[in-house]
Amino acid sequence: MTSADSDTGLLAPGWAGSPAAAETADAAFLRALLDAETALTRAQAALGLAPDGAVAAVTEAAGPGRFDLASLAERARTGGNPVIPLVADLTRAVGEPYGPYVHRGATSQDIMDTAMMLVAHRALAPVLSDLARCERALARLAAEHRDTPMPGRTLTQHAVPTTFGLKAAGWRSLVLDARDRVTAVRGSLPAQLGGAAGTLAAFTAYGAEDATGLPAAYARELGLREPPLPWHTLRTPIADLAGCLALTAGALGKLAVDVLTLSRTEIAEVAEGSGGGSSAMPHKANPVRSTLIAAAARRAPQLAATLYGALAAGDERPAGAWHAEWEPLRDLLRLVGGAARDAAELTEGLRVHPDAMRAHLGLTHGLIVSERLSAELAPVLGRARARELLTRLARRAYEEGRDLGELLAAEPESKDLDVAAASDPARYTGSAGVLTDRALERR
Amino acid sequence: MTSADSDTGLLAPGWAGSPAAAETADAAFLRALLDAETALTRAQAALGLAPDGAVAAVTEAAGPGRFDLASLAERARTGGNPVIPLVADLTRAVGEPYGPYVHRGATSQDIMDTAMMLVAHRALAPVLSDLARCERALARLAAEHRDTPMPGRTLTQHAVPTTFGLKAAGWRSLVLDARDRVTAVRGSLPAQLGGAAGTLAAFTAYGAEDATGLPAAYARELGLREPPLPWHTLRTPIADLAGCLALTAGALGKLAVDVLTLSRTEIAEVAEGSGGGSSAMPHKANPVRSTLIAAAARRAPQLAATLYGALAAGDERPAGAWHAEWEPLRDLLRLVGGAARDAAELTEGLRVHPDAMRAHLGLTHGLIVSERLSAELAPVLGRARARELLTRLARRAYEEGRDLGELLAAEPESKDLDVAAASDPARYTGSAGVLTDRALERR
Amino acid sequence: MTSADSDTGLLAPGWAGSPAAAETADAAFLRALLDAETALTRAQAALGLAPDGAVAAVTEAAGPGRFDLASLAERARTGGNPVIPLVADLTRAVGEPYGPYVHRGATSQDIMDTAMMLVAHRALAPVLSDLARCERALARLAAEHRDTPMPGRTLTQHAVPTTFGLKAAGWRSLVLDARDRVTAVRGSLPAQLGGAAGTLAAFTAYGAEDATGLPAAYARELGLREPPLPWHTLRTPIADLAGCLALTAGALGKLAVDVLTLSRTEIAEVAEGSGGGSSAMPHKANPVRSTLIAAAARRAPQLAATLYGALAAGDERPAGAWHAEWEPLRDLLRLVGGAARDAAELTEGLRVHPDAMRAHLGLTHGLIVSERLSAELAPVLGRARARELLTRLARRAYEEGRDLGELLAAEPESKDLDVAAASDPARYTGSAGVLTDRALERR
Amino acid sequence: MTSADSDTGLLAPGWAGSPAAAETADAAFLRALLDAETALTRAQAALGLAPDGAVAAVTEAAGPGRFDLASLAERARTGGNPVIPLVADLTRAVGEPYGPYVHRGATSQDIMDTAMMLVAHRALAPVLSDLARCERALARLAAEHRDTPMPGRTLTQHAVPTTFGLKAAGWRSLVLDARDRVTAVRGSLPAQLGGAAGTLAAFTAYGAEDATGLPAAYARELGLREPPLPWHTLRTPIADLAGCLALTAGALGKLAVDVLTLSRTEIAEVAEGSGGGSSAMPHKANPVRSTLIAAAARRAPQLAATLYGALAAGDERPAGAWHAEWEPLRDLLRLVGGAARDAAELTEGLRVHPDAMRAHLGLTHGLIVSERLSAELAPVLGRARARELLTRLARRAYEEGRDLGELLAAEPESKDLDVAAASDPARYTGSAGVLTDRALERR
Repeated sequence: MTSADSDTGLLAPGWAGSPAAAETADAAFLRALLDAETALTRAQAALGLAPDGAVAAVTEAAGPGRFDLASLAERARTGGNPVIPLVADLTRAVGEPYGPYVHRGATSQDIMDTAMMLVAHRALAPVLSDLARCERALARLAAEHRDTPMPGRTLTQHAVPTTFGLKAAGWRSLVLDARDRVTAVRGSLPAQLGGAAGTLAAFTAYGAEDATGLPAAYARELGLREPPLPWHTLRTPIADLAGCLALTAGALGKLAVDVLTLSRTEIAEVAEGSGGGSSAMPHKANPVRSTLIAAAARRAPQLAATLYGALAAGDERPAGAWHAEWEPLRDLLRLVGGAARDAAELTEGLRVHPDAMRAHLGLTHGLIVSERLSAELAPVLGRARARELLTRLARRAYEEGRDLGELLAAEPESKDLDVAAASDPARYTGSAGVLTDRALERR
Repeated sequence: MTSADSDTGLLAPGWAGSPAAAETADAAFLRALLDAETALTRAQAALGLAPDGAVAAVTEAAGPGRFDLASLAERARTGGNPVIPLVADLTRAVGEPYGPYVHRGATSQDIMDTAMMLVAHRALAPVLSDLARCERALARLAAEHRDTPMPGRTLTQHAVPTTFGLKAAGWRSLVLDARDRVTAVRGSLPAQLGGAAGTLAAFTAYGAEDATGLPAAYARELGLREPPLPWHTLRTPIADLAGCLALTAGALGKLAVDVLTLSRTEIAEVAEGSGGGSSAMPHKANPVRSTLIAAAARRAPQLAATLYGALAAGDERPAGAWHAEWEPLRDLLRLVGGAARDAAELTEGLRVHPDAMRAHLGLTHGLIVSERLSAELAPVLGRARARELLTRLARRAYEEGRDLGELLAAEPESKDLDVAAASDPARYTGSAGVLTDRALERR
Repeated sequence: MTSADSDTGLLAPGWAGSPAAAETADAAFLRALLDAETALTRAQAALGLAPDGAVAAVTEAAGPGRFDLASLAERARTGGNPVIPLVADLTRAVGEPYGPYVHRGATSQDIMDTAMMLVAHRALAPVLSDLARCERALARLAAEHRDTPMPGRTLTQHAVPTTFGLKAAGWRSLVLDARDRVTAVRGSLPAQLGGAAGTLAAFTAYGAEDATGLPAAYARELGLREPPLPWHTLRTPIADLAGCLALTAGALGKLAVDVLTLSRTEIAEVAEGSGGGSSAMPHKANPVRSTLIAAAARRAPQLAATLYGALAAGDERPAGAWHAEWEPLRDLLRLVGGAARDAAELTEGLRVHPDAMRAHLGLTHGLIVSERLSAELAPVLGRARARELLTRLARRAYEEGRDLGELLAAEPESKDLDVAAASDPARYTGSAGVLTDRALERR
Repeated sequence: MTSADSDTGLLAPGWAGSPAAAETADAAFLRALLDAETALTRAQAALGLAPDGAVAAVTEAAGPGRFDLASLAERARTGGNPVIPLVADLTRAVGEPYGPYVHRGATSQDIMDTAMMLVAHRALAPVLSDLARCERALARLAAEHRDTPMPGRTLTQHAVPTTFGLKAAGWRSLVLDARDRVTAVRGSLPAQLGGAAGTLAAFTAYGAEDATGLPAAYARELGLREPPLPWHTLRTPIADLAGCLALTAGALGKLAVDVLTLSRTEIAEVAEGSGGGSSAMPHKANPVRSTLIAAAARRAPQLAATLYGALAAGDERPAGAWHAEWEPLRDLLRLVGGAARDAAELTEGLRVHPDAMRAHLGLTHGLIVSERLSAELAPVLGRARARELLTRLARRAYEEGRDLGELLAAEPESKDLDVAAASDPARYTGSAGVLTDRALERR
């Protein structure tokens, strides 16, 4: 393999260059694999199963820049994973007398799984920080537009008014849901240590009286959780990651599809702060951030499905289910990392156009408040008569392009009703403000 | 639509007839839809927004057996959901004067979403109870076989010994993971109430001073949680259900694929208590329970993916994303319900054959303990010499069909080693017993 | 199982009541299973392997209404498929002396797979006929609106003009792609006959000299194709169905998302002929047909994924992969059947508003033709100067809400340009007309 | 972005270093993007829309090694795709006077889509060649083992005998199915050229009388097909690729899961030619090739689902659906490319152990031929008596570990039956040989 085969993100404007990208690149995985190997030696030394000299020697040999990623990738093919050639290289680099302590008692999957958890732990840090930026920006938008009325849209049609504040508060609540789940999962990521079949037997063979203390020491060295059991084929941690990442992608995806709709030329109620250019039309400002988030949201569920499917992993270590996890889990981390970055920028820069929102409230000629008028007229006229009247006036409003409120005001039957108030969309936002306030109390 | 179009589970041996099936049938949904409508009237009455007479009238009219499922299904097509014709029928059944209080202020999605949560809540009860049966059966198997040695298999090959106890304890830990997640999600399922665009505006129009108290009252009536915001397009509850159900299917899928492997004619270390017959071979006993669970585990991830994909739901209520949730969520509940039932029966009836396990430990002519022999010989002979010797003897063992321990015992270099002990697979199960004990402490 | 557990489509407004629904209901499967059994007896009789009396007896016994779907579904659980109890019931119904000829030599999967192919064959007939309706309606729309200009939209923003004719021609080309693939796959659906392990051995045991003639005779009886090999675990036919159905759902999904966008209150360039009502807002007309098609398009890909995943089916007949196909394949047939019906109605009833399209062409104040103006000015002014001028004017157009063409006409540098012509969006539709004509030539 | 962020396949032993990997790397995409740009200039020159000097200048500037992948990837973020910065760099490299002819009239998607088709066309060449190797190896295995009996396994249990020849012929038929579909799709891949909204308008603005000739000329330059219409949002070509790639992955996946099963320590009927090592157990030979193929087969369906989902692409060019295609399509090409390579090596090197197969035929003590015995005894003893006798003897065979044939021979009732012949599994392979012959006739 030559550098001609390496990827630098050309097809991935959604995540290339993001903090999560840096934490999930091949080099970052190599670093995590080496961190796992050195932690294993340190943990064994801490329990008296390896000499202190081994710790120094392995740490020294595992230094950055000593390993050839392309060569490791190529040689990974023989045994089906990159740990096998890495252990060979690391052992050679350590040399005598401490070489034998490299990877001692472990299986490839111990190191791969642990490295995957380290990578996830590291990649989720910028995700959480971008979600926090996003949440703050949305809190600001929600507060600022608490009482900015706009059309509520259902099945693509104007239904009744809502406020942009409530909309932003809703987006924020999804971001907080994502944050809470990512935080919980990130704090639960376990180290992996079981040996060939998850019995820790080799560690006993190498002298441990009670090898079950080793995973705990190992996890401590790594800042990961001690697993209750070796989890080579008990893949709850992978499924938990899949779930929280798919939720996050979808939560941001909701924000993105809304911004895409509200950015449409005909709607233009919001605009991304920095629209992307077009190669064909230099003047066009595209909602690029939301486009890329929406693309991530289209991909994440199926990547998560592959990971959920890998739960059905046979035997003590599986032939395929495990190998099918690596790239999809990394892809999910990257997509979510990129989407979180884009969402932070999008929400921080979002331009809101209350005038357009207000103007659109009139597009249905008052039908957007027909629900209210119906509720107010019914006690006065009786329900049947109220419906009859409104149906007739609504048809006229639609056909004549006139306002329903205006038509109603001209009807003698409405004389006891404050038609102007009842037909003002801005005054039919219900509990939007209170709901926004309440949602903003959540931290 | 005639009864010729109805399904009774002919294609679904995995879930037909299960308790979850009964809780998710069309009739169960209808019941839940009606429960949601009556709770809405009760909640409004509790807040003084509807007369007490309305409660009695709606409750009476919503009684079982009054609605025609096939007709509702057919008429659902016009508006895209079954609540619209149901409200029409229910209103008619209530008649004057209380008909106007039916569904008052609500939108179809309020009722559909609430009914979905009710159905999920009800269908998960038997799931949890079957998971509990399964957990108990596995705890018994793990304790009983704490020290039953068997081959640990990795990438389909014998690796080192393990115990059936540890295997069963691992299955159980997955079942407990599933139980914990299902329990948490089941306890968090929210009612839905927002009105046309999630602002509760209609309730205000109908007289509520602060309509935000209504969702709380409504949720109380239903035994569901009060949502922080109307969640018409904030679909975290759906995603949470998808996640815990996909995890459960996968957790049981792991058990199933292991039982399928261990049941193979050549392995036969376990057998389902009641094997299924074959239409072609009357004497054949198939592992049918695990087959059906495995089938469920193959389907669940993609159903969950559809639900995660529905998170990106546009506007205040979406045109398609919401409609795409109904059948997949029901399918997931059914598949998991059926798989839990099958897993309970499977684990309660599982026959274990320790003799076969023990016999298989000899299949590799002792190579299954080569890791241990290597660890024990290295300090005695030096690492290089130990490896050289074992490699040579392993080749002979394989070629001559003789036991590695026996060959090693004949070598003068092994005289300081208790070869018989070191080469007994049953004595190389590492910490399997301790790990099993520890895992069984989890409740 | 009681009738309380049966489904009638309450959650499925997208397909309930459609012709495809009738062809895929449990009753239709039962009919197909019985058709497969009777064809097997007929084929054996045709080859002299069964007496003619058996044909009459089996055909008589397999008559409609003799079997209890709910009971079959319940008893399917024991062996994992419904053929086992069905064969028992059918054999009993045939009685002596011909009972032994029922299902003779076959395995359950022979009958299930054949029935699945029959069901697919039957359900795809209305799909093709609805696609044909849809194609004709779109051809009419494309021809009628060959020169109706409208904004071309990219990344949600107006880009350059296009025509509604080209748009409709594009939708139609997708429908034709779907039709061609469905037609090809429908014509290739094979019967299944292999016996217990696909060797046809039992048929030889029962007297066939060359049993390989039997599958051909059997396929002829059924109007299906003779398979080159028994395909119990060679699932290309299932994958081919998955592919053409996922394509069809997606093709109609493209139509649906476009109609949803163009139906938005702010855009309103098209409207569904019969909009669906809303339970909360009686006056609202929702694009329900496209909503339901869009929902189907969201689900189909993951159902197809489950079927593609089932290709990796182990052994001679698999434990789970096969069982995981039944419901997803039926779901796909139903969803596509419903979507085709909805698409036919949608396209036949679609109302098009050329005035709205024309009006929207002005929304960008002429920026929609900036590409053309740039192309025309460059040769006159030089490329750099042309760009500079247009950039300046575009900014003014945007800020002052004036038309770019008008601003340009006021510039002395434009004197040699027919600005009115060059800035008329309706005259910048490029080859849209010719492309439409060409696309309509495809039949 | 620094090289620290580039991937070299560390997590991808399944495809790293394969021919398809080289054809799908970022560098290969860059080459394809440049090929698309130069072909566009050549096609315009061929139609007199650009001077010949532009062709030379663009071709020269588009030479390899002039562009910085990492920089392009980084700058792709602004506009959401890498064509925008590439066009900027290429235009600058061409300089005056021909710079303006770079990308003239095209949109980013024209170039991206065309490059994707070029990449697919190139990457599928080695796929087809590896499938051909695989097919030849399987033809050889099928012919060689036409009459090698082995247990036919269904639902994991021995059912009736089959032959390894038929099994290999089945694998081969799947490979041929994949080859046929990949060949057809590869031959249909279209170039993309439509301009900003698919109307070819800019080409007209730049002087083309009938711009519809341009896509044809462009496709000819590239060796791709002329599309009937610009297909920016008519994504049948992507869906067709998804379908044939998912089928290929699944077809090879079937081979892999069978090899994994047959390689199990207890079964060992086949072995991979070069088993992979284990880091923990140096003597262990793992079926690594089939493991990696199985992993690919687990991932491909969900990647295809994402691509099928992208069919529902809105407007003239979509905001997200298109962007979601790039990485999944590349991933599919890579996974299938790697799997085809692995399958070629696997089948060419597969070691088959007829003795083990033969030995296993005896594992059920003759129950594997009970179907035949039943068929042969029924005419002699009557069906009821035959079943009764066999059921009794089968139970004895199972309990006493004796052979069913032997027990039957001792029964007086069997005196007219050639029990030895009827109970020899090797003589109960039905039409396996003939079916194998017939399957091998397919080329």
